[in-house]
Amino acid sequence: MKFPAPVAASWLANLIGATLKGNNTLQVQGINEIHKVSSGDVVFVDHPKYYDTCLKSAGDCIIINNGDVVIPDGKAILICDQPFEAYLKIVDHFKPFQPSMQMVAESAVIGEGTIVMPGAYIGNRVVIGKNSVIHPQVTILDDCIIGDEVVIQAGTVIGSDAFYYNTKKDRPNWYKRMKSCGHVVIEDRVEIGAGCTIDRGVTDVTRIGAGTVLDNMVHIGHDTTIGKNCLFAAQVGIAGATTIEDGVVLWGQVGVSKTLTIGKNAVVLAQSGVPSSLEGNKTYFGYPAEEAGIKRRELVWVKRIPEIWKKVMD
Amino acid sequence: MKFPAPVAASWLANLIGATLKGNNTLQVQGINEIHKVSSGDVVFVDHPKYYDTCLKSAGDCIIINNGDVVIPDGKAILICDQPFEAYLKIVDHFKPFQPSMQMVAESAVIGEGTIVMPGAYIGNRVVIGKNSVIHPQVTILDDCIIGDEVVIQAGTVIGSDAFYYNTKKDRPNWYKRMKSCGHVVIEDRVEIGAGCTIDRGVTDVTRIGAGTVLDNMVHIGHDTTIGKNCLFAAQVGIAGATTIEDGVVLWGQVGVSKTLTIGKNAVVLAQSGVPSSLEGNKTYFGYPAEEAGIKRRELVWVKRIPEIWKKVMD
Amino acid sequence: MKFPAPVAASWLANLIGATLKGNNTLQVQGINEIHKVSSGDVVFVDHPKYYDTCLKSAGDCIIINNGDVVIPDGKAILICDQPFEAYLKIVDHFKPFQPSMQMVAESAVIGEGTIVMPGAYIGNRVVIGKNSVIHPQVTILDDCIIGDEVVIQAGTVIGSDAFYYNTKKDRPNWYKRMKSCGHVVIEDRVEIGAGCTIDRGVTDVTRIGAGTVLDNMVHIGHDTTIGKNCLFAAQVGIAGATTIEDGVVLWGQVGVSKTLTIGKNAVVLAQSGVPSSLEGNKTYFGYPAEEAGIKRRELVWVKRIPEIWKKVMD
Repeated sequence: MKFPAPVAASWLANLIGATLKGNNTLQVQGINEIHKVSSGDVVFVDHPKYYDTCLKSAGDCIIINNGDVVIPDGKAILICDQPFEAYLKIVDHFKPFQPSMQMVAESAVIGEGTIVMPGAYIGNRVVIGKNSVIHPQVTILDDCIIGDEVVIQAGTVIGSDAFYYNTKKDRPNWYKRMKSCGHVVIEDRVEIGAGCTIDRGVTDVTRIGAGTVLDNMVHIGHDTTIGKNCLFAAQVGIAGATTIEDGVVLWGQVGVSKTLTIGKNAVVLAQSGVPSSLEGNKTYFGYPAEEAGIKRRELVWVKRIPEIWKKVMD
Repeated sequence: MKFPAPVAASWLANLIGATLKGNNTLQVQGINEIHKVSSGDVVFVDHPKYYDTCLKSAGDCIIINNGDVVIPDGKAILICDQPFEAYLKIVDHFKPFQPSMQMVAESAVIGEGTIVMPGAYIGNRVVIGKNSVIHPQVTILDDCIIGDEVVIQAGTVIGSDAFYYNTKKDRPNWYKRMKSCGHVVIEDRVEIGAGCTIDRGVTDVTRIGAGTVLDNMVHIGHDTTIGKNCLFAAQVGIAGATTIEDGVVLWGQVGVSKTLTIGKNAVVLAQSGVPSSLEGNKTYFGYPAEEAGIKRRELVWVKRIPEIWKKVMD
Repeated sequence: MKFPAPVAASWLANLIGATLKGNNTLQVQGINEIHKVSSGDVVFVDHPKYYDTCLKSAGDCIIINNGDVVIPDGKAILICDQPFEAYLKIVDHFKPFQPSMQMVAESAVIGEGTIVMPGAYIGNRVVIGKNSVIHPQVTILDDCIIGDEVVIQAGTVIGSDAFYYNTKKDRPNWYKRMKSCGHVVIEDRVEIGAGCTIDRGVTDVTRIGAGTVLDNMVHIGHDTTIGKNCLFAAQVGIAGATTIEDGVVLWGQVGVSKTLTIGKNAVVLAQSGVPSSLEGNKTYFGYPAEEAGIKRRELVWVKRIPEIWKKVMD
């Protein structure tokens, strides 16, 4: 999330009750988590394992629970006991949860020729382009951006909160949600089936590229980027912060894990599971998804085991 | 789709800007895609690979992008550059997208004793029989037909558009939706769980047979026919134009591919995948689904590989 | 289900047209199915195979289609031809289907600080605690109980009817739904994603323990008990009457069968299938889910078959 205007790191330090060290005249422009941080951003870290990655990331200001680290030139650190709580405080300040209590929010902008059918909920500051169709019972939550000639079929949810938790097993509640301050961008001419769910980015954007088509009950996790002209069949699920490049085809019930990349024009056959990145322009199958030819031969080999057994045991 | 009344092939030629050849007094009654075409229908084809199938199909009138084919006796062809665009033009003429902007359309017919709960959307010309229950947040789109004593639980969508695209990779948008002009028929005493999606037929009918029961989050593709007294557990997905005969049981998360047949009383165990037709009266398991006994033995054989290895390598 | 007040077994006999034998002064407090029966309950049985289990269960009053059984001391039996129909009659009497026709029922109790967003349906006698958020298009059906600081995201359905049928293939309708008279309890600080479905107990409770978090499109069957601090990723499906103990993690698209137990802190990796109980504190993978280390080695062994083949066939 970018702030409405740049703020002084010292002002942020005050907001979250932290001590500023390093560049004490730094202005920051937004806050992002480590997967999505860019120059001018605040980022936060509370585990020594990730100190170095955060300090050396593109982020200029690091909220950290240790003041004895080496501060890179020009950067600032904000030292506090609970960086995660500091993150939540910043999100609450800039994006407080104040949902619209009307079905179509007054601040929503709906383009010419776009049809919003009855029963659809359109949140605050949602922008929908021209000649799109939003079917009944669709939910589009705050700040999401929908392009031109988009179709969103009945019951689909755009902009649900990320499934992204801070986990600590020494407190009564193990899971504490990292509040989402990101949003969803649906580009032009995307068509989304019925009963899909597309989570917003935690701090950044979940994006569906132009011309991509999704069948029913497809789930897309937070901060995932889908390219242009992709085709996903029904009941596909994609976890968070993954990149699907242009022209990828995922057949029914495929599952894709988080923070990986599927290359351009790859095809993944039905019910396959993708635990790690796949090169483009190939067809994959099975769990873990491998080139379909190899995997199909494996199925044949398994059928030969009894023959081998007979030969060996004789 | 059948037209409201028969129309002259010559009138259609004029509507779509095509040249009529062959039987120039032909009257046609409707339009269907090749999987569903019957006598009196218009059908369309734009790829030489399918010319012959279309010309020899039950359809009497063929929209085609080639005038040099042999026209079967009594049939007519309508020659134009873009048969797919011609199809869309015909659908737009006879079934323009004019959704009801009320939660329950005035033209909907709702039978005696049927309860439509708040938050349900009932589209134009929907017919619901007697003593049925439509739960909150259900969406039933235009022209769908629901029988007597049917239960449709919350959040389910009936009559979403088919996931069926014309694909051409030499244009900016690879996928162009084949507009659906079909509908859904839910026969008497069917019970559908929460969060299901049932796509309408592209040009024909998606049908759920009497007495069939579906658990939650079941997806049924366009033009699929489900027999009577079937039982599908949660998260089953069935692709388009498939036939599931009477009494079939699909356990949880089963996936079924398109344009195949599962025979009467077949049982497919949980999480199996069905890529091709299955005979009735047997129990299947795994991917690709095979008779459960065979597949279970395979799992045992795999566990014996280390023993074989030891024997062979010694 | 407990009755509003204890009733005489003789009164029940009259209601369902049964003959009372055994303890004719017995008072009963509720009705439950055999998985959930406790002292003071009525239970029913119509198949000789289960007579003994029912008679010896905790239930004090057994509706049965055979008068020639040995009645345990202090218990009563209610003899009738159709125990299943008798069950339905009792449910219809104590829990008739009379849904609220308003989006938020007058009898619903909504705690201080709780936000119910537009488009949500809240049924009769629903109780929601403090500081919870119910997103748009959510459906919470009659009698469900939601705790404090609970989040239920858009499109989720709480309290759909159990997918639980009496099956007889010698009648036109094979499946006759066992009407649900149970409900759902969502404990404090549970967070549920978008597009989930949680069925009510048939006669008892489906429970989600405090602090548990569910991603989108998770399905939980009737009478299932989920412990505290569990985490289920997207598209997980859990069948009925299963017990998931505290701290269990199920990754995406996992399927879990009915009436089994997954022990504390077990982890089941993505797309696995769980057909039988699993011990706690281990990580599982595959179908049928086995310890992940064993299953991963199996994948390696399968890849060695060609090498074995070569050695054996040479």
